[in-house]
Amino acid sequence: MGEFELIRHYFAAAACAQAADGVVLGIGDDCALLQVPAGEQLAVSTDTLVAGVHFPAGAPGELLGQRALAVAVSDLAAMGATPLAFTLALTLPEVCSAWLADFTAGLERMARQCGVRLVGGDTTRGPLSLTLTVFGRVPAGQALTRAGARPGDLLCVGGALGNAAGALSFVLGERAEQPGSAELLAHYWSPAPQLQLGQALRGLATAALDVSDGLLADCGHIARASGVALLVEQQRLPLSAALLACMGEQSARQLALGGGDDYVLAFTLPAEKLDALRAMGQPVQVIGRVEAGQGVHLLDAEGRAIEPRHSGYQHFGTHRD
Amino acid sequence: MGEFELIRHYFAAAACAQAADGVVLGIGDDCALLQVPAGEQLAVSTDTLVAGVHFPAGAPGELLGQRALAVAVSDLAAMGATPLAFTLALTLPEVCSAWLADFTAGLERMARQCGVRLVGGDTTRGPLSLTLTVFGRVPAGQALTRAGARPGDLLCVGGALGNAAGALSFVLGERAEQPGSAELLAHYWSPAPQLQLGQALRGLATAALDVSDGLLADCGHIARASGVALLVEQQRLPLSAALLACMGEQSARQLALGGGDDYVLAFTLPAEKLDALRAMGQPVQVIGRVEAGQGVHLLDAEGRAIEPRHSGYQHFGTHRD
Repeated sequence: MGEFELIRHYFAAAACAQAADGVVLGIGDDCALLQVPAGEQLAVSTDTLVAGVHFPAGAPGELLGQRALAVAVSDLAAMGATPLAFTLALTLPEVCSAWLADFTAGLERMARQCGVRLVGGDTTRGPLSLTLTVFGRVPAGQALTRAGARPGDLLCVGGALGNAAGALSFVLGERAEQPGSAELLAHYWSPAPQLQLGQALRGLATAALDVSDGLLADCGHIARASGVALLVEQQRLPLSAALLACMGEQSARQLALGGGDDYVLAFTLPAEKLDALRAMGQPVQVIGRVEAGQGVHLLDAEGRAIEPRHSGYQHFGTHRD
Repeated sequence: MGEFELIRHYFAAAACAQAADGVVLGIGDDCALLQVPAGEQLAVSTDTLVAGVHFPAGAPGELLGQRALAVAVSDLAAMGATPLAFTLALTLPEVCSAWLADFTAGLERMARQCGVRLVGGDTTRGPLSLTLTVFGRVPAGQALTRAGARPGDLLCVGGALGNAAGALSFVLGERAEQPGSAELLAHYWSPAPQLQLGQALRGLATAALDVSDGLLADCGHIARASGVALLVEQQRLPLSAALLACMGEQSARQLALGGGDDYVLAFTLPAEKLDALRAMGQPVQVIGRVEAGQGVHLLDAEGRAIEPRHSGYQHFGTHRD
């Protein structure tokens, strides 16, 4: 079996994992063809993961496959979109069939979980990296952008923060396993895109994104795009028992504010919509509010401004649109 | 200006280069939003270019920017699609503002030429590589696939072959400039996607692709997908005066058969459609025909089978879908 055939063989599973209605033509031609239903728009997002920057160079293929797709699909969740398909550009230093089998098994599992089908890609030789472009559909005019937050809205998140950042020292093997570390590692390697929450937020939330750069940095994106100030109440940050057990309260809070890779949704919500969202069974944690002004402000238990230790996760490695 | 801002600044030009009708939301949110007109489908293709594999590591930024986008858009031409938008995942070893200015200038020029708008992407740190995903629209059911060639059809190409492959020794600086080399270099660095030809072929051609892996290899893709044999008449291969001047006839022919990166369209056409296509002012060169059977067969001037020296450009570096 030639290298072409080998790669095709392994990706065939992910290509067939979902018989997505909107995929007219999948892998194997110059382009894939997607059908977007009348009255809907196509949501598109691209993410690159580079070995040694976004994941450890020796990461197990299966974990890498599922994480890479989950991270990309999370951007669809943040727009309130329904996943449809994805393309994968994979750059590999060498063709290793055992690694490819593991990688595509992880990719296929997450593809099934998210209801998304591999429709094309490119495999090239070079230092290990992956670029995924994901496609979803969303009713015209109902996509959740970052630009609609209004003074008076609540600031909410869809789950606990800081778990993936708390996992990093375990991912890198810098710390030995301990009670809670397995749960943190699961958050890192297999984040669950909040697709149901995102779709439920259509028509309710005024702005939304997924927390990838760190809560404060991502709140800054909403504040800038919406022209408002966001107030984060530090004592309301949802912290998992696993994170608290592994890191202690103070470090856990810093990780929740500044650590990246959580992939829970952060959103602003008119207060009168809160009950409707909870009645739908969606996870909602109120962590602050929107005011007139600009920037992100951290408040202590008495409502006084705190200077955050980290203003968020901003280095050259992660510029996301 | 931070690194984030620097990158955003340089890409703003390409993002604004086209006020494409179908782009509802461009760069700056979790996803871009595209509107596909009723009755049309979305064509999607992904290409990765890695420094040292697909272009010289020290390639000038401006030439790289325009070539990378042209290569990607060529897949839209091959489907008969009208370009709409693209995303760019750029991995850079370091942020250099002079290089970024050059790169985005080249990217923007090609974006204007192809009528395509930058709608999103990701910038990461790592060894230099680019992944572009391009989007186009095509009337439902009219996309040109590789699968419809029928015995009796003519085999045609949209222009001269082998120019880009002939340029390689000049690109790499292995040979000094000579008469004709500048024309070959222009073909390599600034291939012109045959968008008008692709759109004209809708409803006429039975199969099409763009020649990227080499004529014989790409004809093999059509033969396999269509379940037919393709016969290539060697003496009908269109060779440019520049290629003949630089390489001599025998080498020129080998480059035309086996060299990659031409990005002209190859297509099969019922003989009775040839005049209609020529009447539309489209470039058409008949180079052979389709017969029942399988595989690609090279014929000499007397119609006898020749064993080709190269069966095409197949190594791990270029698996394209």
